Amino acid sequence: MIKKNAFYAQSGGVTAVINASASGVIEACREHKDKIGKLYAGQNGILGALHENLIDTGKETSAAISALKHTPGGAFGSCRYKMRNLEDSTAEYERLIEVFKAHNIGYFFYNGGGDSADTCLKVSQISARMGYPIQAIHIPKTIDNDLPFTDCSPGFGSVAKYVAISTKEASLDIASMAASSTKIFILEVMGRHAGWIAASAGLAAEEAGDAPHIIVFPEIPFVREEFIAKVEKVVKKNGYCVVVASEGASYADGALISGSLNKDAFGHQQLGGVAPTLASMVKHALGYKYHYALADYLQRAARHIASKTDVEQAYAVGRAAVEKALQGKSAVMVTIERGKGEKYSWHIGEASLEKVANVEKKMPRSFITKDGFGITQKAREYFQPLIMGEDYPPYKQGMPYYPKLKKLLVDKKLRRWSGS
Amino acid sequence: MIKKNAFYAQSGGVTAVINASASGVIEACREHKDKIGKLYAGQNGILGALHENLIDTGKETSAAISALKHTPGGAFGSCRYKMRNLEDSTAEYERLIEVFKAHNIGYFFYNGGGDSADTCLKVSQISARMGYPIQAIHIPKTIDNDLPFTDCSPGFGSVAKYVAISTKEASLDIASMAASSTKIFILEVMGRHAGWIAASAGLAAEEAGDAPHIIVFPEIPFVREEFIAKVEKVVKKNGYCVVVASEGASYADGALISGSLNKDAFGHQQLGGVAPTLASMVKHALGYKYHYALADYLQRAARHIASKTDVEQAYAVGRAAVEKALQGKSAVMVTIERGKGEKYSWHIGEASLEKVANVEKKMPRSFITKDGFGITQKAREYFQPLIMGEDYPPYKQGMPYYPKLKKLLVDKKLRRWSGS
Repeated sequence: MIKKNAFYAQSGGVTAVINASASGVIEACREHKDKIGKLYAGQNGILGALHENLIDTGKETSAAISALKHTPGGAFGSCRYKMRNLEDSTAEYERLIEVFKAHNIGYFFYNGGGDSADTCLKVSQISARMGYPIQAIHIPKTIDNDLPFTDCSPGFGSVAKYVAISTKEASLDIASMAASSTKIFILEVMGRHAGWIAASAGLAAEEAGDAPHIIVFPEIPFVREEFIAKVEKVVKKNGYCVVVASEGASYADGALISGSLNKDAFGHQQLGGVAPTLASMVKHALGYKYHYALADYLQRAARHIASKTDVEQAYAVGRAAVEKALQGKSAVMVTIERGKGEKYSWHIGEASLEKVANVEKKMPRSFITKDGFGITQKAREYFQPLIMGEDYPPYKQGMPYYPKLKKLLVDKKLRRWSGS
Repeated sequence: MIKKNAFYAQSGGVTAVINASASGVIEACREHKDKIGKLYAGQNGILGALHENLIDTGKETSAAISALKHTPGGAFGSCRYKMRNLEDSTAEYERLIEVFKAHNIGYFFYNGGGDSADTCLKVSQISARMGYPIQAIHIPKTIDNDLPFTDCSPGFGSVAKYVAISTKEASLDIASMAASSTKIFILEVMGRHAGWIAASAGLAAEEAGDAPHIIVFPEIPFVREEFIAKVEKVVKKNGYCVVVASEGASYADGALISGSLNKDAFGHQQLGGVAPTLASMVKHALGYKYHYALADYLQRAARHIASKTDVEQAYAVGRAAVEKALQGKSAVMVTIERGKGEKYSWHIGEASLEKVANVEKKMPRSFITKDGFGITQKAREYFQPLIMGEDYPPYKQGMPYYPKLKKLLVDKKLRRWSGS
């Protein structure tokens, strides 16, 4: 049997640790040169496969591959490109198989969230249908933490750590200023459908009364009067109030808080504006001076303060994907399973992609306090271990050293792809 | 001669390292118990003196005082309270002297920016006029880096490091996504009058073409057409464009970019909106998908990634203030002087407050490239040493350990103050 080559691609929004998964895949492949030939990475994710833009990872030094463990972003490029329905768009999947065939690729490692789990499953299905064997393994990644069957998603722990630390630091700042100046600080974080990230800010509080005092979750319908009343109560008690708000927070009718108030001079709706909108509400109702921050990409790129646990898990799921492929598995997602003991432990597991695809893991209601503005002890026990440990990148000249890859493309063998 | 007590207060917007200065003052005072009695800290800055809310720093453990070196915010509380003109408001200054007299305070250590340098000078003047001797020493602090006669201001180096790292990390994120998604990332940073902070983002670039591609300085009148043309050129060349914009950036007529476009539903002008405004412009003119972040307090509270050089300098100016007082000096500001050698070095100096007060250090035009959108090699040589070294706080349970002080107030001896 001729040794098969492998293909790896990054999908969707990147994280501080997705490259650690890439490093795991590449290093594991290099350790199994007897079974796996070359490992190609898709330039800009799955688009790299469709366009036959394949990066030869074999040209990168082992030092560079090791350095991926501490480099944020997507080293080979990612993409926002959702493969269409298999039935409506067979040509697209056929093109994938054609490229894989042309480059003797038998292993497909796809590193992403829910959509890419779905794509991974479909690749395995079309491969069976077309009689060209591909082992398709999904490597979980999403800051949203919404993948099912895994205790957490690599990428989430580092965002959680960044958000918790940022909340704590900003709260020390406003606490110093509140007596004569700013009384409200609002941090807006990512999470369109689920409040996992916003909830993790709750780890900033060590004891009752500590910031954050209010978390605005997408899971809890927003009621302006309740929010304002809570802000006023907190300020009267503590002198200031720290709010962490999820970008996806919305009213009972589904209208986003962010979308409801602002238009720019061109009449465009301003997005990502939960924080300024909440700040305006507070100013209008209570007159307090406010500050707000919008973490945006900073939160998911903050490799400088990544969670060590998250980095280790991201690396491990990359390695495990290769090992599972070598065990003959396909159409599975690698998972993180939490040990049963009181002390946190984790190990690698797997889930069938048939079950994973198109299921979103919601944050349990039991993680949110009764009043809808905080996290419970149960949530704290879930989140705490995920931010444990620091894994600092090396520094040169005062800056983290994030080396660049060569990213050399292999010669094309096929005609230009006319799709997308 | 009876030993005099000392008073220390924090003023204005806090920084990631102002507590390191506090630690320097307190530790130096403790080493000179033969000459300096008790050290009181103002609760919420100078307001603590006016209201006779004096924190007895002697009640804090040496471990807690040492931990201030790695704790952001203002541990004793700061304030935005500008002492009025000496002639118009003699009563206020007389009250200060009255409090100092009541508590046998002979040393006044004031930790802040330009306004507090001015207050410090006036305290020294009123003390002479009233015949109650006070040695008033100013300890520089400002993220704005706009104090004259000092090579840099403690607090600035850590913001610079945070902004440069955040710019670099976010640029790796957008570089991964640009082929199929977001093409513009804008980071808004502090700096109302001077572009020191925005300029420091330039350290994120290692070679030509690296992000940030555009810096929007308050020093350079903003011309929309030039900005849009530059964005388009950068995107055509690199596939994406990273912009760092100062909150104080404005048009030639002085109108702030941020103030010119947005109003919320209540008709309030939205402030701190340079990033969304620039993003809207780009979207409107070029159609690119964008993301933006607003660092706000996060940038000046980010002790987790403080510059080691900055921490050391902040601590040193605190210690030096005490030493200068013991040398009999008054009405001086402690300064950082840069050594002449090729390799960066620094030492403590001093400047007369007569000269310091009400002078703002502008960023030299020679630090900004001809086109107004970048920093020069000269700027790089100035900024580089200020972000050198990492000084990580200790961690507990995945979070930086920022201990709380007891902050016990001493008994009041005077009537309630009826001012402010």
